[in-house]
Amino acid sequence: MSTYYEKLEIVGVSSKSYEDAIQNAVHEAKNRFSELRWFEVVEFRGGITDDESIQYQIVLKIAAKKGN
Amino acid sequence: MSTYYEKLEIVGVSSKSYEDAIQNAVHEAKNRFSELRWFEVVEFRGGITDDESIQYQIVLKIAAKKGN
Amino acid sequence: MSTYYEKLEIVGVSSKSYEDAIQNAVHEAKNRFSELRWFEVVEFRGGITDDESIQYQIVLKIAAKKGN
Amino acid sequence: MSTYYEKLEIVGVSSKSYEDAIQNAVHEAKNRFSELRWFEVVEFRGGITDDESIQYQIVLKIAAKKGN
Amino acid sequence: MSTYYEKLEIVGVSSKSYEDAIQNAVHEAKNRFSELRWFEVVEFRGGITDDESIQYQIVLKIAAKKGN
Amino acid sequence: MSTYYEKLEIVGVSSKSYEDAIQNAVHEAKNRFSELRWFEVVEFRGGITDDESIQYQIVLKIAAKKGN
Amino acid sequence: MSTYYEKLEIVGVSSKSYEDAIQNAVHEAKNRFSELRWFEVVEFRGGITDDESIQYQIVLKIAAKKGN
Amino acid sequence: MSTYYEKLEIVGVSSKSYEDAIQNAVHEAKNRFSELRWFEVVEFRGGITDDESIQYQIVLKIAAKKGN
Amino acid sequence: MSTYYEKLEIVGVSSKSYEDAIQNAVHEAKNRFSELRWFEVVEFRGGITDDESIQYQIVLKIAAKKGN
Amino acid sequence: MSTYYEKLEIVGVSSKSYEDAIQNAVHEAKNRFSELRWFEVVEFRGGITDDESIQYQIVLKIAAKKGN
Amino acid sequence: MSTYYEKLEIVGVSSKSYEDAIQNAVHEAKNRFSELRWFEVVEFRGGITDDESIQYQIVLKIAAKKGN
Amino acid sequence: MSTYYEKLEIVGVSSKSYEDAIQNAVHEAKNRFSELRWFEVVEFRGGITDDESIQYQIVLKIAAKKGN
Repeated sequence: MSTYYEKLEIVGVSSKSYEDAIQNAVHEAKNRFSELRWFEVVEFRGGITDDESIQYQIVLKIAAKKGN
Repeated sequence: MSTYYEKLEIVGVSSKSYEDAIQNAVHEAKNRFSELRWFEVVEFRGGITDDESIQYQIVLKIAAKKGN
Repeated sequence: MSTYYEKLEIVGVSSKSYEDAIQNAVHEAKNRFSELRWFEVVEFRGGITDDESIQYQIVLKIAAKKGN
Repeated sequence: MSTYYEKLEIVGVSSKSYEDAIQNAVHEAKNRFSELRWFEVVEFRGGITDDESIQYQIVLKIAAKKGN
Repeated sequence: MSTYYEKLEIVGVSSKSYEDAIQNAVHEAKNRFSELRWFEVVEFRGGITDDESIQYQIVLKIAAKKGN
Repeated sequence: MSTYYEKLEIVGVSSKSYEDAIQNAVHEAKNRFSELRWFEVVEFRGGITDDESIQYQIVLKIAAKKGN
Repeated sequence: MSTYYEKLEIVGVSSKSYEDAIQNAVHEAKNRFSELRWFEVVEFRGGITDDESIQYQIVLKIAAKKGN
Repeated sequence: MSTYYEKLEIVGVSSKSYEDAIQNAVHEAKNRFSELRWFEVVEFRGGITDDESIQYQIVLKIAAKKGN
Repeated sequence: MSTYYEKLEIVGVSSKSYEDAIQNAVHEAKNRFSELRWFEVVEFRGGITDDESIQYQIVLKIAAKKGN
Repeated sequence: MSTYYEKLEIVGVSSKSYEDAIQNAVHEAKNRFSELRWFEVVEFRGGITDDESIQYQIVLKIAAKKGN
Repeated sequence: MSTYYEKLEIVGVSSKSYEDAIQNAVHEAKNRFSELRWFEVVEFRGGITDDESIQYQIVLKIAAKKGN
Repeated sequence: MSTYYEKLEIVGVSSKSYEDAIQNAVHEAKNRFSELRWFEVVEFRGGITDDESIQYQIVLKIAAKKGN
């Protein structure tokens, strides 16, 4: 059996930082998928509220090991 | 719990228009996933039949809200 | 009902060739998904061991027909 | 004096089609800028409401002639 | 003999829609090449006239089957 | 009247972090434009001083709602 | 007279490997064009049959010397 | 107050060279904006007249320092 | 009959400048195709000889008007 | 003598943040190269351990002044 | 001391296959650099001789571990 | 022994033209590396002084033959 991964595109958000948005996204993904191994950041975005506070939004491709 | 989305890449087709191909793809995706929120068009393609009629083909990344 | 596909990003590996890595990835995907129709290669990578042997790593977008 | 253009990135929306979203964006831009000459589509996106209706969103780079 | 295609980059225009611009481009290409099979949209552009009407311009890569 | 946005490309800097550079850029943009709604990060760069300290530089596309 | 090349986009296929698909495409192109000099691979794709066998598809830009 | 720039996309033309087209574009931009600091070339294009003479067209992103 | 263009990818060279390489390429293309209208530069490259002189190489997409 | 730079692609890691990964990479590069002036971030990636902690990985192009 | 890599862009060739071109490139790089760990393929190209034989050319980014 | 090249990313500048910036960069590189064979232009940029004069900046990937 050969090594095999599946990659999922996910979006996480945080009011603190992109690192925190990544941790939030990985934490949610861990509840839904097992054996997460690495990620690549696809996109950095953000929302701006009327009082100038920022919501950091991150899009990741996250890879999970699959197979036996 | 933080906001969290998963994005899926899907393909829809139509003999009428790209907008119709999008609606077909979103309709099929709605039967399979819940809480669809937005999409980004990745690719516009098409097939050409011998009588010159066109099949419009659209590739979307579609985002679904996940988590509680 | 209109034609509808979903595309999944997967990673396969082989010590022999990229074609073998593709076959490994498609074989694993066939165990998990049905009606696979085509793929696009997204990325060619590789690992290098201390004795200079190479592990070929391929990232594919693979499309499965869905719907009725 | 040489020919000179400035390009602005704008976003238009429509519930009908991308062509309608383009017309809306160009119409708004005409109220704010003069001598618009051409545009390039940068991005096709969309929003999805709970009843499955779609808001077509288009991002354009639009060019205006400037100078005497 | 193996399957073999050539791809040509063409530009079509329409005052109505991008789908109409595609049909115009495919129709012209059919007068000049045989066995057209599929296309990929490379670029969506447009011209803007002084009375705000729009000329939709589409750039396609169109594939023709060649060989015996 | 349809929804309409204009996007501006801006550059912010900080000696602390990219998030701080974003906040600086958004703060300056708020002094000059109203109704800022979202941004996309276009580029992450940095300057390096002789004592190895780093100036984080961020390029954003920032979107402002326009029209009545 | 200066050196001058024209580049054509072509598609070749093989059930064996991408190298074989390239040889098939170059062989077909040689029947139709003279003085082929180099190529660049634009895209690696593949078809998947029901019995899991793979058709390797390659898209090349191939350059031919033209002029006297 | 932090350092802050705005970038504008502009188009210049010349019948002589791309460098001349850049100088024309920068000269026009200087009449309209202050404190221009750097530019990045986005696109090199050209028009061809019936007598084979060429109009060089350049698209630049040009950065202006803003703020106090 | 609608407006219709075909685009060809060509390569020109010069020992003097990129503008000269473009003129050489356009001149050769004029001998082979009619109604050339515009071009886009795809790639700037160069060869380096042993005595440090440079051969400027330019890759263009050039558009010709076709149809009656 | 004209100004001249060389750019090197380097990878840094940190368990804390991307800014820390950049500082680590720049610190290592300073031990090996002199007159570092600026960098551009090429890629943001990360590793995920079994206990959900994240290793931030950054790929930079870093520029060093060379010549007399 | 943190983990740190440097990436080098290299070109290998083979008359047999891209995998053989990769092995040739890695073998040459091993003679010149130590602790090579992984590579990413940047470009697949090829030369065509008059008798239709092909020289496979591969461009890799190859990563070497550096530091203590 | 197989043919093998290494590519280096370098930056040259000139107050005259991009071709002059290329010659400056190649001249500096020749002082530091041997057997330079070709280059690809990666980026065209420029600095703008207060009196509107321009410093042309070019980023090249330059390839050197290595090995016996």
